[in-house]
Amino acid sequence: MILVLGSGNFATSLAQHLAQKSKVVIYSRRQEVVHSINTWNKNPTAFPDFVLHHNISAIGQFSQQLLDSAAYIVYSIPTQAQRSVLLQIAPFLTTQLLIFVNKGIEISTGKLPSEICADILGPLAQTCAYLSGPSFAAEIMLGQPTACSISSPSPESARRCHALFQSENFLIYDSLDVIGVQIAGALKNVIALASGACMGVGFMQNSRAALITRGLAEITRFGIALGADPITFSGLVRIF
Amino acid sequence: MILVLGSGNFATSLAQHLAQKSKVVIYSRRQEVVHSINTWNKNPTAFPDFVLHHNISAIGQFSQQLLDSAAYIVYSIPTQAQRSVLLQIAPFLTTQLLIFVNKGIEISTGKLPSEICADILGPLAQTCAYLSGPSFAAEIMLGQPTACSISSPSPESARRCHALFQSENFLIYDSLDVIGVQIAGALKNVIALASGACMGVGFMQNSRAALITRGLAEITRFGIALGADPITFSGLVRIF
Repeated sequence: MILVLGSGNFATSLAQHLAQKSKVVIYSRRQEVVHSINTWNKNPTAFPDFVLHHNISAIGQFSQQLLDSAAYIVYSIPTQAQRSVLLQIAPFLTTQLLIFVNKGIEISTGKLPSEICADILGPLAQTCAYLSGPSFAAEIMLGQPTACSISSPSPESARRCHALFQSENFLIYDSLDVIGVQIAGALKNVIALASGACMGVGFMQNSRAALITRGLAEITRFGIALGADPITFSGLVRIF
Repeated sequence: MILVLGSGNFATSLAQHLAQKSKVVIYSRRQEVVHSINTWNKNPTAFPDFVLHHNISAIGQFSQQLLDSAAYIVYSIPTQAQRSVLLQIAPFLTTQLLIFVNKGIEISTGKLPSEICADILGPLAQTCAYLSGPSFAAEIMLGQPTACSISSPSPESARRCHALFQSENFLIYDSLDVIGVQIAGALKNVIALASGACMGVGFMQNSRAALITRGLAEITRFGIALGADPITFSGLVRIF
């Protein structure tokens, strides 16, 4: 069974994708979401018109039994809540493969998701994996061809995670550059917002292309300063 | 005086940009274009509704006098004609700074613009510069903020070229990676065509993002194989 933590758009779309291969349980704190998924196979807060795959169910509380039956845990709750959620589930963890699909930097500490893991999970953090990549949840729901990167300090975790997500229309690239993949995933959104603002004030494609190109250069320099491999930012990843 | 070889959209937009600072002469083989520019300040084949800057005039033939009065020559004719045009003007060349703004690879030889220069100009090719970057001619005509890269084997040429093109709304980045800048400029268009086809058959943003990301990875690998600096493909250039 795959446990998906979170019931937002991205969480729901990944649950729908993964349900093609396996039973999926969505964890949500919201009782109306749990009830709706279990009763009508619909998530009222994410793509409410979509009927979810019959392999999907939902649950509202953590328990040892729940965590024991999960081979994979997909963490899809905002980064600012990662520390508190990890503290809640840490006592239940044994051999589950944790896959973080959240992006961003913890505001109070300046840390990346992998660094929050290291703080709380200790050596177990070395087996966690991180999924990132250019993807809209709505298009994953539609089964549109999508590519993502998976990185992990553990080649074995990356391989398992790759096998879990990979499908005919979901292409996975593996990387050992955990820092680079997370930095790229977090900072590209800053440039995306700037790009929208650029168009909004009336600038055109040349300006947008300049912003994106130079934004990528700045993200790369930022990544290099934090120990990332610059090649990650060209879309290249080191394949195992 | 700046001599612009070519009267297409990109040539005309660069002439319009450069005319803010200097006299510009557009060379065109088409007599109606020369006549129209010299009579009405309009290019009938490129942005025919635009009144060109009063610093722009046109000429239909090469002569020693014409070439002698040019401090800069901006080459903006397709790459497949570069060899024959260079052979025509080579006898007139002395100290002019040649700036190539064409993109692509010579089909009959597989050579880049800089390699065609080396074939015909010998050591003089070491002083040539190459302009590339994400830019639409129509937006340069409108004075939209635009960024381009300039590369040259000669730091002195790159500096002069930089000073020539740079303005408040035209930002120039210098690079010593002549091969990388040319490869990026040529091959991005292949990915751009594929991206258009991808959308045309009904795929959406996830697929397009995957195509562009992996396309950039492929361009980078192609560039590395030809001796380019991989960092060029992240939008980073080595500043002098």
